[in-house]
Amino acid sequence: MTPRTGSIYPSAYKEMMQGRSSLRLAEAGGLTQYGVNLVRLEPGAISSVRHCHQNEDAFVWVTMGECTLVQDGGAWAMRPGDCAAFPAGAPDGHHLVNHSDSPAAFLVVGTKAPQETAVYSDVDMMVTITAGDKAAAEFMYKDGMPWTGARPAVE
Amino acid sequence: MTPRTGSIYPSAYKEMMQGRSSLRLAEAGGLTQYGVNLVRLEPGAISSVRHCHQNEDAFVWVTMGECTLVQDGGAWAMRPGDCAAFPAGAPDGHHLVNHSDSPAAFLVVGTKAPQETAVYSDVDMMVTITAGDKAAAEFMYKDGMPWTGARPAVE
Repeated sequence: MTPRTGSIYPSAYKEMMQGRSSLRLAEAGGLTQYGVNLVRLEPGAISSVRHCHQNEDAFVWVTMGECTLVQDGGAWAMRPGDCAAFPAGAPDGHHLVNHSDSPAAFLVVGTKAPQETAVYSDVDMMVTITAGDKAAAEFMYKDGMPWTGARPAVE
Repeated sequence: MTPRTGSIYPSAYKEMMQGRSSLRLAEAGGLTQYGVNLVRLEPGAISSVRHCHQNEDAFVWVTMGECTLVQDGGAWAMRPGDCAAFPAGAPDGHHLVNHSDSPAAFLVVGTKAPQETAVYSDVDMMVTITAGDKAAAEFMYKDGMPWTGARPAVE
């Protein structure tokens, strides 16, 4: 099983995803009703641009090393056996960052909603994904205009 | 957060579930689209009577100790970081048994199907569960007759 690397992000954010790789465990086991990925973060890597989901519940469980969970309210260290849940529709964006000097890893469980929108917390971007097909993800600004390049960060 | 113990099984099988407890992590975090439970098995305990699901995908990830996965084809030792997937509708029943002399634990992810039927592999029993309400589970024999007590094990 080969880890997936790279990112579906527009070029402005694609490079930020270096050092992240993931194994699609549930898919490999023939499951279709939800995703379970084992994500590995090299030192300095991030799980995603910080975001929240409109329609999909997300759950993470740290399996190795130390990650920092960042949300609107601050940052929390997470170690193996720590977990966090992000209900669909909750506006508090999240991502995990490896600030340590060793690799870290976590499991992430996610629904496969027929139609999903993720909104990025710190940049003017959102994305719609239909039927879980990330290859056909449509990125746009938060006003719904099609993506043509990064705007300045939200203050 | 208090671990749940006990079982919804009929009296013939309820005692077999001693030594198993679980934490409903996703529910505690406000998630509704799937369940994520952390199940602890004391030495000798089993995760369930061996069964398969008609409509719900299941996924397990061992977090502590050593469990033995039992399926039709045999038994496999599982240690922290090992995982297994059980697609909805696959007829190969499964359960985890702690044959070691130390506690073991695993995460289990499950869909919340509107209507679910689980079929037990080694005894003449099945159960229907509507809208995930295990308190209203209906146990029956495999011929659909209402449960009135354990029949002899299937040879």
